[in-house]
Amino acid sequence: MSGDFTFEILAQAGAARRGVLSTAHGAIDTPAFMPVGTAGTVKAMLPESVSSTGAQIILGNTYHLMLRPGAERIAALGGLHDFMNWKAPILTDSGGFQVMSLASLRKIDEAGVTFRSHLDGSEHVLTPERSIAIQDMLDADITMAFDECTPFPATAEQALHSMELSMRWAARSRQAFRQRPGYGIFGIVQGGTYPELRQISAAALRANGFDGYAIGGLAVGEGQETMFHILDETVPALPADRPRYLMGVGKPADIIGAVMRGVDMFDCVLPTRSGRTAQAFTRHGTINLRNARHAEDKAPLDVECACPACASYSRAYLHHLCRCGEILASMLLTWHNLRYYGDLMRGLRAAIGSGTLGDFVAQFDDAQARGRAAA
Amino acid sequence: MSGDFTFEILAQAGAARRGVLSTAHGAIDTPAFMPVGTAGTVKAMLPESVSSTGAQIILGNTYHLMLRPGAERIAALGGLHDFMNWKAPILTDSGGFQVMSLASLRKIDEAGVTFRSHLDGSEHVLTPERSIAIQDMLDADITMAFDECTPFPATAEQALHSMELSMRWAARSRQAFRQRPGYGIFGIVQGGTYPELRQISAAALRANGFDGYAIGGLAVGEGQETMFHILDETVPALPADRPRYLMGVGKPADIIGAVMRGVDMFDCVLPTRSGRTAQAFTRHGTINLRNARHAEDKAPLDVECACPACASYSRAYLHHLCRCGEILASMLLTWHNLRYYGDLMRGLRAAIGSGTLGDFVAQFDDAQARGRAAA
Repeated sequence: MSGDFTFEILAQAGAARRGVLSTAHGAIDTPAFMPVGTAGTVKAMLPESVSSTGAQIILGNTYHLMLRPGAERIAALGGLHDFMNWKAPILTDSGGFQVMSLASLRKIDEAGVTFRSHLDGSEHVLTPERSIAIQDMLDADITMAFDECTPFPATAEQALHSMELSMRWAARSRQAFRQRPGYGIFGIVQGGTYPELRQISAAALRANGFDGYAIGGLAVGEGQETMFHILDETVPALPADRPRYLMGVGKPADIIGAVMRGVDMFDCVLPTRSGRTAQAFTRHGTINLRNARHAEDKAPLDVECACPACASYSRAYLHHLCRCGEILASMLLTWHNLRYYGDLMRGLRAAIGSGTLGDFVAQFDDAQARGRAAA
Repeated sequence: MSGDFTFEILAQAGAARRGVLSTAHGAIDTPAFMPVGTAGTVKAMLPESVSSTGAQIILGNTYHLMLRPGAERIAALGGLHDFMNWKAPILTDSGGFQVMSLASLRKIDEAGVTFRSHLDGSEHVLTPERSIAIQDMLDADITMAFDECTPFPATAEQALHSMELSMRWAARSRQAFRQRPGYGIFGIVQGGTYPELRQISAAALRANGFDGYAIGGLAVGEGQETMFHILDETVPALPADRPRYLMGVGKPADIIGAVMRGVDMFDCVLPTRSGRTAQAFTRHGTINLRNARHAEDKAPLDVECACPACASYSRAYLHHLCRCGEILASMLLTWHNLRYYGDLMRGLRAAIGSGTLGDFVAQFDDAQARGRAAA
């Protein structure tokens, strides 16, 4: 473990934990949601606006940043925090997931992945060592091990071979990581939908001693029930004293279920991407603001929300902006959605701390059900 | 003149004036620049951000708003100020200019213009009476008379007939305007590039007694020299005690020249549109941030500027955002450009007030010349 990169558990409620993760650029209250800042910006948001939603850490994408503007350039400009004016912690993914989903002409071998950029067709190589070096240049507080995200569906044999490759890459990633006070590296459990493979993967990572443990390869089409089942089988195999991060998750109900199963950290493009497509999260469910029923509605999006979109604008105005394709629609709805996620995590943390998690979850379910009934 | 819709001249420097225009929604220090809020939003900006640049009044577009979401709907929602959360003064154009530039299948007769929406092909009619009624429903502090913007080039005969039609429409607009305390209506001088027609137009408007006088049909391709010549011939024909508004202008040097000729108000899409196409205004000229020479430049856009783009980001980062087509590029560059215009107007007002307008203009010209020499 790396110097003062520490994780303290303040309270527990069943498997759920309320904690504080301390890093070089500040502390993160957990359970935490990390907004995604793909290309060095949380789309349509100023960094201070992101902070105002309650976010204390964001995620940066190695794949996007290595291609444009390049890791060496960001390093020369003082690292990703200075470059994008985000002074709080940053977690970077390893590039493994997006190489598989975005790049073309991929070739995987034991060394790593050779691929062509989706931007200009240029050839690049990502290995565990190169991924860790890039994340070092970006100055990520939390570095992720380089892995292969096992596709879904996969046979047990495919999932086994993919997981074993990821575990060899995880060991090389751990080895390549440069220890500095306040910086940490997380390993990533793979193994598809096969609990026994997840157990093997978790054990392999534990043997390497990571600063935190991520669960990858979920929320890729397997469904919530399967995902929760895999969490039930995987989380207990992870060290209790280290943060646990469920990658790419997710919908509010997915996050709540995962928190109840002992997960501490999350990231997802859902609130930001939805904000650019007229979708708003509310306590009573998701709203499509392009719908004509909002055209003359003077009410705010959510009367209980304190974000600028809810404080100063009507649904009718937001509907108008969405219909016109105005940039302000993306700005206001992204802000609202991140605030919704920030409030959700704040509520979960408070409920764990006060021993009222059951009530919190019941109220969440009830409000969503009433929203569906009203729709 | 309408109740407490007042214009006070505080200082003069040659023909240039430093004044205060008071309206129902607040006061405007002149010379003033009005950011354009076409569809009920100054694109890529929150209203409070627009205010922070020094803007005290914005322009709304009758043509766009009548088509979407509709003037009646905005009225039902409390007017344009409430709808878009802009509590300061609003000037609306009459729709005449954009009917001619955007709509299709236009038919002009003495009554007005019949046209088809560029959005959905639906047929609409704009007359002086309908334009004034729409601006009333929008709750515009300053209503513009409905006119035909004479195309450039136009023969003297074309310009005469167009101007005469606009003057008949101006009289009907004045008649249709509903007097309320704090609200005013401006007439628009037409006459193309023909000084004698401009004189006739100004006299016709004066006879109707407008609250302010706009100069239309310029900055349409005639060039700065011709524009300044027409201003020299037109401004003295306008009442000295009423505000003067040069429509659709313009570049910083155009604004400075017009202020020196006695113009008080301006609007232009240049700072906002440029902000969405990687163009930034600086004291040393215009910068294209897509240019590769900015890729590794740690310097801010303009060291003397206090906007967020200059306070917290490098040219390298702004270049990156522009190359990636990120929304944040439009947000930061629009903010910067409006701040540049705000600072320019603040500087002009201070210089007129302190009797140093000559120095101000010499410094502006010198900085721009040094910028060209360095480029």
